[in-house]
Amino acid sequence: MVLVHTNVTPDRTVGFVPSGAMTKPVRRKQHDANSLLQVAVRVFNERGYDGTSMEHIALAAGITKSSIYHHVDGKEALLGLALDRAIDALDGAFLPAGQALEDFGAPIVAIDGVVRRTTKALLDDIEVITLFLRVRGNSPTELKAIDKRRDFDKRVSELVTLAADAGDIRADLDPPVITKLVFGAINSLIDWYKPGGRLTDDQVVDHVSALVLDGLRHR
Amino acid sequence: MVLVHTNVTPDRTVGFVPSGAMTKPVRRKQHDANSLLQVAVRVFNERGYDGTSMEHIALAAGITKSSIYHHVDGKEALLGLALDRAIDALDGAFLPAGQALEDFGAPIVAIDGVVRRTTKALLDDIEVITLFLRVRGNSPTELKAIDKRRDFDKRVSELVTLAADAGDIRADLDPPVITKLVFGAINSLIDWYKPGGRLTDDQVVDHVSALVLDGLRHR
Repeated sequence: MVLVHTNVTPDRTVGFVPSGAMTKPVRRKQHDANSLLQVAVRVFNERGYDGTSMEHIALAAGITKSSIYHHVDGKEALLGLALDRAIDALDGAFLPAGQALEDFGAPIVAIDGVVRRTTKALLDDIEVITLFLRVRGNSPTELKAIDKRRDFDKRVSELVTLAADAGDIRADLDPPVITKLVFGAINSLIDWYKPGGRLTDDQVVDHVSALVLDGLRHR
Repeated sequence: MVLVHTNVTPDRTVGFVPSGAMTKPVRRKQHDANSLLQVAVRVFNERGYDGTSMEHIALAAGITKSSIYHHVDGKEALLGLALDRAIDALDGAFLPAGQALEDFGAPIVAIDGVVRRTTKALLDDIEVITLFLRVRGNSPTELKAIDKRRDFDKRVSELVTLAADAGDIRADLDPPVITKLVFGAINSLIDWYKPGGRLTDDQVVDHVSALVLDGLRHR
């Protein structure tokens, strides 16, 4: 997890009691850089990054804007920290094709491994990965994330091509299109998955794997 | 296709020459309700519905705001027309479970039929369906679309349940989760599909069907 930033002091908390606290009971909010980042990511996902101001984050965090600047440089720095966290989480899942083959053996097993790992990574860090998948490319920080998305996409597409060449997957399928469809299914989790639903995370991973490898048809 | 609206006169065109047209050559834009709707949908998709003003649409259409009001009541009316068009296009694809079984016979064939029809409908009307899938529910018009999305979802989920009960699809799969994953893959087309790519629309439909029914594994 990347949380290193010049203006971040992860072990320090800030407390702020708004004016009026003497007359009305106000819950005192304390944040370290990590909990502040969690709040910021939640607000970015709710309002969209472009529609979020530092005021929105301060309000959601229950602290002042200046308290936030005590932790980070600003909105884009918060975005950068969140995206780095998403990229770290996904980097160990979207293995380069060569390494996936080395780790898992047969190409079809490697595809299953990558599909399972990325799904699990998404469920484990769904907030930052939601942000990562929705970023639109309006700043250098966002463009870096988009480059990374392309890189991940390319790794899987190469693996699917290798699997096709090895005869492990059906020859009538176009690797880039199949890669897009498979990750369309996986990425859709950010739109509908609710933690604590009827299925455990592991069962959701099993469902994704079953669909991708063998489809719905009963044999 | 629904394009009936009290203030819409589909067969009438408006032309507007901006001031300055006498000194600089300016391309004269003409629109009927249909072409204006196309422009509005494109702008909604580019800027997001909430981030779009009537000025943005007027600018993109190359006409004045008042010329637009000559055709429609306003922004939400344009959205409503576009969403009705999307719903019409999808309604014939997302068949109710009973009707899908009647039309296609075996449940697994019905699932394939619905998957193929919805994919084809999406590719045929990708602009309005993109708008339909991205609507967030901030107005009655948007809420109606969200209700319709739920309705479509329910129809497919019922069909998948019937297919599971009939033993046509694998018994270890949860119908609502599988439905979400399958339409996650299909709906992702709005994010990456480019008309005129290497594959024809029919080939893309074949890929979706192949993935959903039989998965990637070579047998």
